Amino acid sequence: MPMVVNCAVYENGRRVADLTLDELKDRPRKPGSFVWVGLHEPDEETLSTVQQAFNLHPLAVEDAHRAHQRPKLEQYGDDIFLVLRTAHLGKDNKRELGETHVFAGRGYVVTVRHGASSSYALVRARCEAAPALLKHGEDYVLYSIIDFVIDNYMPLAECLEDAATQVEEQVLSQTAGRETVAQVYRLKKEIMEVRRSVVPVIDMAARLMRPDNPLVDPNIRPYFRDVQDHAIRVVENLDNVRDLLTAAVDAGFAYLSMTQNDVMRRLGAWAAILAVPTAIAGIYGMNFEVMPELRMTFGYPTVVATILVICVVLYRMFRKRGWL
Amino acid sequence: MPMVVNCAVYENGRRVADLTLDELKDRPRKPGSFVWVGLHEPDEETLSTVQQAFNLHPLAVEDAHRAHQRPKLEQYGDDIFLVLRTAHLGKDNKRELGETHVFAGRGYVVTVRHGASSSYALVRARCEAAPALLKHGEDYVLYSIIDFVIDNYMPLAECLEDAATQVEEQVLSQTAGRETVAQVYRLKKEIMEVRRSVVPVIDMAARLMRPDNPLVDPNIRPYFRDVQDHAIRVVENLDNVRDLLTAAVDAGFAYLSMTQNDVMRRLGAWAAILAVPTAIAGIYGMNFEVMPELRMTFGYPTVVATILVICVVLYRMFRKRGWL
Amino acid sequence: MPMVVNCAVYENGRRVADLTLDELKDRPRKPGSFVWVGLHEPDEETLSTVQQAFNLHPLAVEDAHRAHQRPKLEQYGDDIFLVLRTAHLGKDNKRELGETHVFAGRGYVVTVRHGASSSYALVRARCEAAPALLKHGEDYVLYSIIDFVIDNYMPLAECLEDAATQVEEQVLSQTAGRETVAQVYRLKKEIMEVRRSVVPVIDMAARLMRPDNPLVDPNIRPYFRDVQDHAIRVVENLDNVRDLLTAAVDAGFAYLSMTQNDVMRRLGAWAAILAVPTAIAGIYGMNFEVMPELRMTFGYPTVVATILVICVVLYRMFRKRGWL
Amino acid sequence: MPMVVNCAVYENGRRVADLTLDELKDRPRKPGSFVWVGLHEPDEETLSTVQQAFNLHPLAVEDAHRAHQRPKLEQYGDDIFLVLRTAHLGKDNKRELGETHVFAGRGYVVTVRHGASSSYALVRARCEAAPALLKHGEDYVLYSIIDFVIDNYMPLAECLEDAATQVEEQVLSQTAGRETVAQVYRLKKEIMEVRRSVVPVIDMAARLMRPDNPLVDPNIRPYFRDVQDHAIRVVENLDNVRDLLTAAVDAGFAYLSMTQNDVMRRLGAWAAILAVPTAIAGIYGMNFEVMPELRMTFGYPTVVATILVICVVLYRMFRKRGWL
Amino acid sequence: MPMVVNCAVYENGRRVADLTLDELKDRPRKPGSFVWVGLHEPDEETLSTVQQAFNLHPLAVEDAHRAHQRPKLEQYGDDIFLVLRTAHLGKDNKRELGETHVFAGRGYVVTVRHGASSSYALVRARCEAAPALLKHGEDYVLYSIIDFVIDNYMPLAECLEDAATQVEEQVLSQTAGRETVAQVYRLKKEIMEVRRSVVPVIDMAARLMRPDNPLVDPNIRPYFRDVQDHAIRVVENLDNVRDLLTAAVDAGFAYLSMTQNDVMRRLGAWAAILAVPTAIAGIYGMNFEVMPELRMTFGYPTVVATILVICVVLYRMFRKRGWL
Ligand SMILES: [Mg+2]
Ligand SMILES: [Mg+2]
Ligand SMILES: [Mg+2]
Ligand SMILES: [Mg+2]
Ligand SMILES: [Mg+2]
Ligand SMILES: [Mg+2]
Ligand SMILES: [Mg+2]
Ligand SMILES: [Mg+2]
Ligand SMILES: [Mg+2]
Ligand SMILES: [Mg+2]
Ligand SMILES: [Mg+2]
Ligand SMILES: [Mg+2]
Ligand SMILES: [Mg+2]
Ligand SMILES: [Mg+2]
Ligand SMILES: [Mg+2]
Ligand SMILES: [Mg+2]
Ligand SMILES: [Mg+2]
Ligand SMILES: [Mg+2]
Ligand SMILES: [Mg+2]
Ligand SMILES: [Mg+2]
Ligand SMILES: [Mg+2]
Ligand SMILES: [Mg+2]
Ligand SMILES: [Mg+2]
Ligand SMILES: [Mg+2]
Ligand SMILES: [Mg+2]
Ligand SMILES: [Mg+2]
Ligand SMILES: [Mg+2]
Ligand SMILES: [Mg+2]
Ligand SMILES: [Mg+2]
Ligand SMILES: [Mg+2]
Ligand SMILES: [Mg+2]
Repeated sequence: MPMVVNCAVYENGRRVADLTLDELKDRPRKPGSFVWVGLHEPDEETLSTVQQAFNLHPLAVEDAHRAHQRPKLEQYGDDIFLVLRTAHLGKDNKRELGETHVFAGRGYVVTVRHGASSSYALVRARCEAAPALLKHGEDYVLYSIIDFVIDNYMPLAECLEDAATQVEEQVLSQTAGRETVAQVYRLKKEIMEVRRSVVPVIDMAARLMRPDNPLVDPNIRPYFRDVQDHAIRVVENLDNVRDLLTAAVDAGFAYLSMTQNDVMRRLGAWAAILAVPTAIAGIYGMNFEVMPELRMTFGYPTVVATILVICVVLYRMFRKRGWL
Repeated sequence: MPMVVNCAVYENGRRVADLTLDELKDRPRKPGSFVWVGLHEPDEETLSTVQQAFNLHPLAVEDAHRAHQRPKLEQYGDDIFLVLRTAHLGKDNKRELGETHVFAGRGYVVTVRHGASSSYALVRARCEAAPALLKHGEDYVLYSIIDFVIDNYMPLAECLEDAATQVEEQVLSQTAGRETVAQVYRLKKEIMEVRRSVVPVIDMAARLMRPDNPLVDPNIRPYFRDVQDHAIRVVENLDNVRDLLTAAVDAGFAYLSMTQNDVMRRLGAWAAILAVPTAIAGIYGMNFEVMPELRMTFGYPTVVATILVICVVLYRMFRKRGWL
Repeated sequence: MPMVVNCAVYENGRRVADLTLDELKDRPRKPGSFVWVGLHEPDEETLSTVQQAFNLHPLAVEDAHRAHQRPKLEQYGDDIFLVLRTAHLGKDNKRELGETHVFAGRGYVVTVRHGASSSYALVRARCEAAPALLKHGEDYVLYSIIDFVIDNYMPLAECLEDAATQVEEQVLSQTAGRETVAQVYRLKKEIMEVRRSVVPVIDMAARLMRPDNPLVDPNIRPYFRDVQDHAIRVVENLDNVRDLLTAAVDAGFAYLSMTQNDVMRRLGAWAAILAVPTAIAGIYGMNFEVMPELRMTFGYPTVVATILVICVVLYRMFRKRGWL
Repeated sequence: MPMVVNCAVYENGRRVADLTLDELKDRPRKPGSFVWVGLHEPDEETLSTVQQAFNLHPLAVEDAHRAHQRPKLEQYGDDIFLVLRTAHLGKDNKRELGETHVFAGRGYVVTVRHGASSSYALVRARCEAAPALLKHGEDYVLYSIIDFVIDNYMPLAECLEDAATQVEEQVLSQTAGRETVAQVYRLKKEIMEVRRSVVPVIDMAARLMRPDNPLVDPNIRPYFRDVQDHAIRVVENLDNVRDLLTAAVDAGFAYLSMTQNDVMRRLGAWAAILAVPTAIAGIYGMNFEVMPELRMTFGYPTVVATILVICVVLYRMFRKRGWL
Repeated sequence: MPMVVNCAVYENGRRVADLTLDELKDRPRKPGSFVWVGLHEPDEETLSTVQQAFNLHPLAVEDAHRAHQRPKLEQYGDDIFLVLRTAHLGKDNKRELGETHVFAGRGYVVTVRHGASSSYALVRARCEAAPALLKHGEDYVLYSIIDFVIDNYMPLAECLEDAATQVEEQVLSQTAGRETVAQVYRLKKEIMEVRRSVVPVIDMAARLMRPDNPLVDPNIRPYFRDVQDHAIRVVENLDNVRDLLTAAVDAGFAYLSMTQNDVMRRLGAWAAILAVPTAIAGIYGMNFEVMPELRMTFGYPTVVATILVICVVLYRMFRKRGWL
């Protein structure tokens, strides 16, 4: 994939020209016109060219050089710098997180993708297919990108929910084992990470919706509120999954503890029953010369019968008390 | 059930005409007059007709197409879009949650029902029976709907409370078992879900009561405060049930743990007592040629007596220490 | 007890007349004069007469018809509606909660008692005994009622503290048992309920103290702050008791777990020691024809001595390791 | 100790006269002059004399009559009423809490000590030794008192930290026992109590620092910030100690649980090993007439060897699995 | 290391002179010029000279005399006093915390280092290498110092993360033991301490960024936001590590508990199986004269076969139930 994925000029909601990065500096600057640049893991030189073209703040560019920033929205005067964590469901439902940085201001939007994030070609295609909306300009593009990012979290959250439901089923059917513990551990860790990626978007959207935001027109504000609503929904789904997992683990532990105690109690009860014949038989296995019982004709059957009676009584007693 | 349940014009608190959806566009628009439309799982065409008639915002209509939105209140200029989760106690006290979307603005109120929600025919009947209040207009209808939705949560919350009280009784009478664990798990999950459905209504009511809300007249504000109060009461009941459940589970675990330890200790104590005759009898069961005790006339009764004494002493000792 | 407990007119801090409910409507309305009505579980008609006399808001009266409201303060214009949960220490220190509703506005104060609440005759007597303060009017009466309600929580909170201290003592003296578990469960539940009854009063007092409150004069504000202070003290005492209970339960569990493990370990150690003579004696109890040891003159004492030595060594070893 | 510890007039930072309580009423009232009265558990009459001299609010005096108030700051017009909980390290590092009430306003500061609190003679001496600061007047005296109170918490917090460190050491060296549980319980309770005594001072200082406070001059504000900073430090130390204690208890439980399981597993493993010779020897102890093995010359050594081999194999197996 | 590490005058971003402390008082005071003093554990006299030169507030200097202050930002008029906790990775990745106090105001910046903190020579070198930025004056120096302090936390946080990952691996590979418990305890304690050191910087940066801060120019504000962002990142990393540790400990306990129960169950099951031959053989080891089975030719093999069958059946049953 090339470093410069796309670089086009838009006027009144329509793509009017494609530029190279070097042409950016001398682009035509008319009101209602803006440039939309898409970069993918750019090198320092590429980023530096873009920085000079749009006069980006050095602190923002410094962050964009390195991935692994936390999600945030920073305003430098009229210019905005956004860091977004992106969700990606890969092959075999492999859940991955990538990162996108967005620079936006009067006349330009620049996206910088890092890692396992989906291409924004689809966003661009959708925008170009709706010129009536794209006419609104940079703020509509910004909305479209964040909307796309948040929409990608939905399937990932559902995928996490499926995994948690599997754990739940294992627990309720009492087939949870060692592997379930590791699975719960990994799921919890992943939910925490995804949550940390989405939560900041709620606040970002709130700040972009504020009336004093210079870049966002009043008629675009409801769109950012919609993004915020979807982000909250993702977070609530994640919280849901986490709570479900916690409750399932609690139930699982209760079952496990009950089962383990059951087993130990039953083994203990059997051992206690078996200790009776052992003890009594031991008595009559002693080699004293004078043991009158040994001489009795019905001594043996009497003792065996006594042992059986004791064992049966104990068995019934244990049974009644729920020990067996 | 038809998709269009009802569609009527009201003037000064009285129903003056019934319309078809197609007549909506050319309805008479006088001050003090409004249309109240009731839909049930409408198809796209129906919703689109209504959208055009009242000029509804596309983002709101997009949400209304699909159920499974989170409860929320969105304002688009003077127009309001409400998503409510509704409670329903079905046959055999089956607890279900449905969803209702409400569009309201100058001159119209539209309700869209999804899933297991109760019909609003009752609300309409009540409103029509009180023209002095219905005269207040759209805001009073809005209040009546939310009030009805919240009132339906009361029996459901009580039903959850009954279920929790059953668990509590099982625990305190020490008859809780494996099934109780699953029951607690399911109850907790359900309480969390119901809570998530009601909590947002508290904030919705607060926002509808605010002085700057264009749609709600000052004399209707106390009614929304009343709705808010009832919503808080439902939430407090749910929190109550949840806390009760948590405390009962803690007590149940304490009992279980005590009982299980009791049983193991008693079995262990009996095993220890029985190990004494086994060991002593084993000694005198040895086949050494020279074992003077075996020759003694009172050897056997002495040993048996000794064993008995030791066992009784141990029994008393264990008893005194509370081990038996 | 009659439904109308009291109904009197006050002027300049002195009781000047007693009225029947029917005379309320045509009562003299002078500045500095007000009516104070005391009701006890009134029927609908009584409440309706009062409502018409003072023009009470229908939503407030609706709440007053039924007990089991949550504690709250609602303002309808210049009129105030208060719901208070009241504490009552009955015979044998039986802890009970009742409910009082208060309507107050220019020229009137109405109290409506439900359930196990103390009579406000005492409050009335105290007010009438201090005309210099009662001269302040309705706000001073309002203060006196809330102050009385909160003061009644103090002995109840102390009673709960005593109960918790008993639990604490049982735990620290290691005599806690099954009954303690149930006791802790019930105490926790009760503390939660009492707490929920008092906490809202803190906010009520804050709202009554606000400068923009039309009914409360500046020189009465410190009195409401005093009520608030006492409510906070009750809540802090309850939190204290709850924390103490939680810590005691933790300590109790630690003790229990230690004790139970001690017992099992000791029983296990004794069983292990006794298994040695059993095993060795078993060997020499075998009936092989060729067993040279059995022929030896000192075979028997040697084996017995060996067994004793092993047992003593094991005993000492276990002792040293703290297993016995 | 007398009830009136001290009662002096200050002018321009210097003590100019000592008064009796009865002279207070007719004291000279010049700007820049104030009276500083120190009381110790005064009776009603004494307090009443002071109340009349400085026109103290009856609600504040009511609180001052009884100790056991919660820490708080109340303003009555220009007059301030402070309740402080005081820390005291007695003999043998005995940790005690007392109470001090402070009345302050234009021209006077009154301190009322209850219980185990240190005398403010030291504060007075320090103030009198720094006339340049004492010249600031009542607010500087107020600061000096609160500063002294907070400074006294430092050694107490360190004393609690030492106690917690002892617990920590016992836990990490695995010598924690029953007494440690009681110690942790008592420490936690004490930390909670001390914390509740200091936390309110943070807010008090904040309120005294506010620009609209009539009694505190701008140049004294940084001093109250300093007091606040020290109070926060005490609270953080206490939180630290509490967290340390919690973590140590967790670690201690983990150790205990591991140790107890170790012991039970080892005893169980030995019992299992010893059950083998018992069972096998039991077989050859049977008295059947036809048991060919008993006739074999090498039957006995073969069986003993077999038993030994099985026991050694089991021992090694258990060892390898970490069961022994 | 000397107490005065550095003391230089800067004009327009360039170092123009080096001073001794005694020359500070009579330094040239031009706009755009400032002095930057670096001290290392100064004695009282040194600090006093500096205090007089820059007119530092006595309360701030009092704090600077002693280390072990909590991180804070205090403003005295236009002058700022900062307490920072500093991170230091020593030899063999030894993690240490030091302390730095910063005084800053119009025309001066003074740093005071205590304990294991890195020298600020590097910061000074970097600033002097960028005169265009250093030209901004005291606020840029302040930023550079805080930035350096926060940057030093990054490797320390990563080091803690590595330690936590090691614990995690031990847990998931089920090799966690007693030493892991102590390690987790120490790591948790350290994370809490580091967290407490960084968290206050978030608020400090926020206060330095506020428009009404007299010392910080608008164009330097984004730099403080950058510092704040990095501080938040450090805190989030620490929270991450802590959550990871908690989850790993939970998983570890689950494993441990499962393993220990497995072992006890298996030992118990074997003991129960072995109790069968012991009991049966005991019966036939009794010495009754009349025991017909003993006379039967196939009595012995029949009994042995019966024992074997019972044992095999039990073994299979236990196996099937997962007890073995
Ligand atoms: Mg960052
Ligand atoms: Mg987070
Ligand atoms: Mg939504
Ligand atoms: Mg949602
Ligand atoms: Mg959430
Ligand atoms: Mg949720
Ligand atoms: Mg959701
Ligand atoms: Mg929720
Ligand atoms: Mg209510
Ligand atoms: Mg309620
Ligand atoms: Mg709640
Ligand atoms: Mg509640
Ligand atoms: Mg409630
Ligand atoms: Mg628990
Ligand atoms: Mg108080
Ligand atoms: Mg209190
Ligand atoms: Mg509270
Ligand atoms: Mg509290
Ligand atoms: Mg308290
Ligand atoms: Mg507290
Ligand atoms: Mg400090
Ligand atoms: Mg501190
Ligand atoms: Mg704190
Ligand atoms: Mg802290
Ligand atoms: Mg600290
Ligand atoms: Mg634990
Ligand atoms: Mg912290
Ligand atoms: Mg960060
Ligand atoms: Mg981070
Ligand atoms: Mg964090
Ligand atoms: Mg993080």
